[in-house]
Amino acid sequence: MVAPILNDRDMAFWLFEVFDVEQLTRRERYQDHNKESFLAAVELGRKVAEKHFLPIRQKVDTHQPTFDGQRVSMIPEIKPAIEAVNASGLACPSADYDMGGMQLPPIVASAATAYLSAAGSTTLGYTSLTNANCNLIESHGSAEQIAKWVVPMREGRFAGTMAMTEPSAGSSMADLTTSAVKSDDGSYRISGSKIFISGGDHELTENIVHLVLARVKGAPKGIKGISLFIVPKVLVNDDGSLGERNDVHLAGLFHKMGGRGQTSCALSFGERDGAVGYLVGEENKGLRYMFHMMNEARIMVGTSAAVTALTGYQYSLDYAKERPQGRLPSSKDPASAPVNIIKHPDVRRMLLAQKAYAEGAYTLCLFGAQLSDDERTAATQAEREQAHELLDFLTPMIKSWPSEYGPRANSLAIQVLGGHGYINEHPVEMFYRDNRLNAIHEGTYGVQSLDLLARKVPINNMAGYRACVAAIEATIEQAKMHESLQVFAEQLIASLALLQTTTSTLLAAMMEKPIDLALANSVKYLELFGNIVIAWMWLKQGIAAQTGLDATDHQAERDFYLGKLQALRYFFNVELPEIYAWSALLCKLESSAFDMEESWF
Amino acid sequence: MVAPILNDRDMAFWLFEVFDVEQLTRRERYQDHNKESFLAAVELGRKVAEKHFLPIRQKVDTHQPTFDGQRVSMIPEIKPAIEAVNASGLACPSADYDMGGMQLPPIVASAATAYLSAAGSTTLGYTSLTNANCNLIESHGSAEQIAKWVVPMREGRFAGTMAMTEPSAGSSMADLTTSAVKSDDGSYRISGSKIFISGGDHELTENIVHLVLARVKGAPKGIKGISLFIVPKVLVNDDGSLGERNDVHLAGLFHKMGGRGQTSCALSFGERDGAVGYLVGEENKGLRYMFHMMNEARIMVGTSAAVTALTGYQYSLDYAKERPQGRLPSSKDPASAPVNIIKHPDVRRMLLAQKAYAEGAYTLCLFGAQLSDDERTAATQAEREQAHELLDFLTPMIKSWPSEYGPRANSLAIQVLGGHGYINEHPVEMFYRDNRLNAIHEGTYGVQSLDLLARKVPINNMAGYRACVAAIEATIEQAKMHESLQVFAEQLIASLALLQTTTSTLLAAMMEKPIDLALANSVKYLELFGNIVIAWMWLKQGIAAQTGLDATDHQAERDFYLGKLQALRYFFNVELPEIYAWSALLCKLESSAFDMEESWF
Repeated sequence: MVAPILNDRDMAFWLFEVFDVEQLTRRERYQDHNKESFLAAVELGRKVAEKHFLPIRQKVDTHQPTFDGQRVSMIPEIKPAIEAVNASGLACPSADYDMGGMQLPPIVASAATAYLSAAGSTTLGYTSLTNANCNLIESHGSAEQIAKWVVPMREGRFAGTMAMTEPSAGSSMADLTTSAVKSDDGSYRISGSKIFISGGDHELTENIVHLVLARVKGAPKGIKGISLFIVPKVLVNDDGSLGERNDVHLAGLFHKMGGRGQTSCALSFGERDGAVGYLVGEENKGLRYMFHMMNEARIMVGTSAAVTALTGYQYSLDYAKERPQGRLPSSKDPASAPVNIIKHPDVRRMLLAQKAYAEGAYTLCLFGAQLSDDERTAATQAEREQAHELLDFLTPMIKSWPSEYGPRANSLAIQVLGGHGYINEHPVEMFYRDNRLNAIHEGTYGVQSLDLLARKVPINNMAGYRACVAAIEATIEQAKMHESLQVFAEQLIASLALLQTTTSTLLAAMMEKPIDLALANSVKYLELFGNIVIAWMWLKQGIAAQTGLDATDHQAERDFYLGKLQALRYFFNVELPEIYAWSALLCKLESSAFDMEESWF
Repeated sequence: MVAPILNDRDMAFWLFEVFDVEQLTRRERYQDHNKESFLAAVELGRKVAEKHFLPIRQKVDTHQPTFDGQRVSMIPEIKPAIEAVNASGLACPSADYDMGGMQLPPIVASAATAYLSAAGSTTLGYTSLTNANCNLIESHGSAEQIAKWVVPMREGRFAGTMAMTEPSAGSSMADLTTSAVKSDDGSYRISGSKIFISGGDHELTENIVHLVLARVKGAPKGIKGISLFIVPKVLVNDDGSLGERNDVHLAGLFHKMGGRGQTSCALSFGERDGAVGYLVGEENKGLRYMFHMMNEARIMVGTSAAVTALTGYQYSLDYAKERPQGRLPSSKDPASAPVNIIKHPDVRRMLLAQKAYAEGAYTLCLFGAQLSDDERTAATQAEREQAHELLDFLTPMIKSWPSEYGPRANSLAIQVLGGHGYINEHPVEMFYRDNRLNAIHEGTYGVQSLDLLARKVPINNMAGYRACVAAIEATIEQAKMHESLQVFAEQLIASLALLQTTTSTLLAAMMEKPIDLALANSVKYLELFGNIVIAWMWLKQGIAAQTGLDATDHQAERDFYLGKLQALRYFFNVELPEIYAWSALLCKLESSAFDMEESWF
C-alpha cells in the first residue's frame, strides 16, 4: 500500500464544511464555478502530483542541481513535471481567464496545489514563485510590462524570481547596496550581488524574470530608498522575441540540506556594464511593492510547511497501521502476536500530535487564502477592508506557526518509523530536512515575531489585534451552541483573557521600559498568540465536525468527525495550556538572555 | 577565525571544578595519573580531532559509503583518521594498561574523546563501538575469547559491532528470530538477518567481530531465550592468523540522513551453512550480557548528542560574534552601522538556550561516566552499589534528554546562521541531521520512557528513585550555602515536591487503572524528570561557578563563571517551569491520544 499524499476527505471537509466555499460561487468572479469544478480542481492537483511529482520525489532529493561554471544541470525529469503543471493550469489557478488562469478562488487553488507541494514542494517552487511574480507585476507594473513579462510567464515560457537578499544585508533590507543608474532610454543599469535566490538560474524556461530590489543613485538611506526593477536573464525585443543575454550571471549554487528541487543561487548583476532593469511603479517605493509579493510568499511558506507536515503525517500513519512490532504493557506474553504499532499509546500520541499540528496549521493557511480572496472579491468595501486588516495581522502567524510546528510534526513522523525513519528508503527524513527552511526564508521566526509585536499589534490603535480577537470571539459564540464544544469555548475565552493581559503588559513595557528589553521575548509572544490562533482553527474545525457528526449515521463519516474532535481535544488539553508558562515569562519581562553579556558566552 | 570544536575552559571546569577528578588519583587504578596527565589526555583528544577529523568532516558527510555488491567503498581519509585515534590511545582510553589502554578514569576519557565525537561522531563510532564490544567480552567472555578477539580489537586490527535489531523485530527483543544450532565442536551455526548494524561491514580492519543476539533451537520464547554469540566476519585460527571467510554477508547499506561517517548495514548470517558463532557466557543469558554493552552504548549516545549540541553552539556563537547585520529596535537609524548579530536579544536567547541545553546535557553525561567508574573503582562496596543504583536509574535520562534537547540546540544553531545555516558551507545543518538519530537508536525515546516509569521507578521498592532524589537533595544543601543560589535551591525543592506528587499519582494509577492508560504519557514523565535532573546538573555547575567567582578577580575568569550562572538562571527561569503543565497532564492521566481509535485517524 502506498500512503496517500494528502487525505482527500480532509480537503473536502475544509473546503465545504469549515469554509463553505460553495457560497463563493455567488461572487461574480467565480460565477462559472460550482462544487463540482472545485472538486475537479483538487482532483486534478492530486492526479498531476501522483503522476508527475511523486515518482521523481526521491530522485529530485538525491540529485541536486549542479553548476559547471557555464550552465545549470538538473535531472531531466523536472522539466516535464513542471510542464505538466503548466499544462494542467495549476501553475496559476487563480489568475484571470484572459491571463490563462482558471479564476479559482485562492482557497480552492491552495487545496489543489497542496498535493503538488506535498509531493514536491520545491519543484513546485518554480511555478509558484513565477505566479507570485506575475501577481506583483499585474498589481504594480505597467500595461506594457504585463504584456511583455507576465504573459510569457503565465504561458510557462518564462519563469520568475524574487531577488532581495544580499550577502552582507540578509534580513536587513535597510542595508541593501545593489545599485541602479538611470540611462537615457529610461531603463536602469543594475549592479550588485544577490544570494539565496530560489530558481535564480536554470534551463527550464526560455527566460527568467528577476524582480530585484536596488537603490537608485542618490536615493535616501534605509528602506525608504529602495526601488523595484524587472531584470530579465535575457533581454526581450519589442516584438517579444528574445534578444541579447543581460548582464546577470550565476555566481554559484548553494547546497541545501533539503528543498533540492529548486536551485538556490548567488547571482551577479552588472559585472560588465550593468544589467538592464526596468523600474516597477515609482522610484523608492520598491519595498512596498515587494511586500505584495512577500506577503503572498509568506503565506506560501506557511502553506508549504503545513502540507509537508500533513504528508509526513499521512505517511507515518500508513506505516503505523501496517507495521507489527512489540506488545502492550498489559500483554507481555511473548507467545502472543506482535501488534501493529498504532496500538501503542505513545505511537498514537505521536500521530495525534502530528494531526493536531498539521491540520491546525493548514486550516490557518486556508483561512489566510480565503482572506486574501475576500480582500479583493468580498461583496462590500467594508468586508474587503476587514479581510485586509485581519490577513495583514495574521500573516506573521500564518508564516510562522506552521514553520515551527511543521518540522516538529515531521520529527514525530521520523520517530514513528524509528530507524526506518532515518533512512532514505522512506521520505520522512526528507520532509524533516525540507521543512527546516521554512522558519528561515521570507523573514525568520524572529523577524516575524518583531513584525507582530512591535508593528502589527500596536499599529492603528490595535485595530488588527482587535479584529483578530473579535473574529475569535465570533467562533467561540458559534461553538457555544454545541454542548460538546462548550468546554473548549470556555478554555479559549480564558486564553483570550490571558492574551489580553500579556499584550497590555508588553505594550506598557514598550512605552515605559527600554524597547529592546520589552521586545526581547517577542518570539514567545508569537508562539503564545500562534497557539491561541491554532486553537481557534481547531474550534472552527470542531464546529464543522460536530455539525457533520450530528447529521450522519455513516460509520466512516462518524469516525472521520470523531477524529477531528479528538484532535481538537488533544490540542486544547496538551498544547494550549503551555501558554500559561509563556505568559508568565512575558509578563515579568524575563531577561536572562537579554542580560547575558557577550563576554560571558 | 575558525570556531573551536569545544570550549577548553568548559572541559577544565567540568573535570576539576564540578567533578573534582583530581581526587580520583587517590584510587589505586589511577595512581599513575595526575592533573597534568588528565589535561594532556584532553589536549590529545583536541589535537587528534583538529588534525585528523575536522579537515575531513564535510567530505565524510558528502561522500557516504557505497556497496557494489562485493565490497564497501568509502573515502580514503577515514582509515588514517581511525588509525590516528588508535595510535593516540584514544580508541580505548579507559582500558587496562596491559590491554593497551591508558587506564584513564572514564570521565576524563569522555572529555578527551568528546573532541573526536564533536568533530566526527560517526567516524569515531568505529572505535567506540569496538571499545564497548571489548568491554563486554572482557566482562562476560572467557579468557580464551579475550585473547582471541579482544586483544586484536584493542590493537586496532579488528573492529567490533553489536548486532541486535532484526527487520521484523525492531525494538522488540522478544521477537528476535535469528537462530543458533550447536555443532559438535561446541561452536554454533548462526542464521538470520540483522539490520541497522553500525560498522557492520567495511575494509578498515582485517576483521570484524560481531556480537550477535540469537535464539538457540528449543530455547524459551521471548527475552528469556536469547543468547549472545561472537560471530567474526573472518574465522581466526588457533594461532591468531586469519582463516576462512565466515558465512556472514553484507546484504546492503542504508542511506542515512546523517551520521555518514559510519556504515549502517543489513547483514545476512548463514545464507549457506550457517555462520560460525561462539557462545558468550551461558545460553539464554544473552540479553543480560548485551545490556552491559547497551547501557554503555546508551551513555555513548547521550554523550554524542550532547557534544554535537556543544559544537553546534560553539560554531553559531562564533558566527554571531562576527556577523554584522541589522540594528536594534532602539536604533533604527539606517545611517548607523549594523551590529554584530550577538547584540540582538533574540540571537542571545538562541545562544543561551543552546548553552543551557548542551552544557546541561553534557554535565549529565560526565556524571554518568563518573558513576560508571564509581561502580567499579569507588573505595567501598557500599559506594559501588550506590553508584550502580544511581547510574542504572539515570541511564534512560542520560540517553534521552541530550537526544531530545541536543537536536533542539542544533536547530537553534541553524536559526542563528539564518539562510547560511541551511547550506553545507557551514556544518550546523549536518549537526542537525547527525543528531536526529540519537532519539532513535539504542532504545527510542518511548522505550526509554517505559524503562524509566514502568521499571526503574517502581523496582526494588523505588530504591533508584530514592537514591536519585537523595542525591539531588544533597546538591540542594550545598547550593543553599551560596546566597546567590538560594532562589534556585528553593525552586528545585519545589520541583522535587512536584515530582513526588506526580510519581505517586502515576504509581497509584499503575496499580488501580489499566496499565496501558497509566503508562500512556510516559514520555512526558521522562521529560519532566529529565528537566529536573538537568536543573540539578545546572545547580551543580552553579555551585562550582559561584565558588570560582568568589575566588578570582581575573576578568576573563569572572566572565566565564558569570556565563555559567546566567545559563543556570535561564534554565531555571525559562525551561524548568514547563514541568508544571506536564505534571498536570500526567496527574489527570490525560487520555486524548490513548482514547483515539485507530479508525478515527
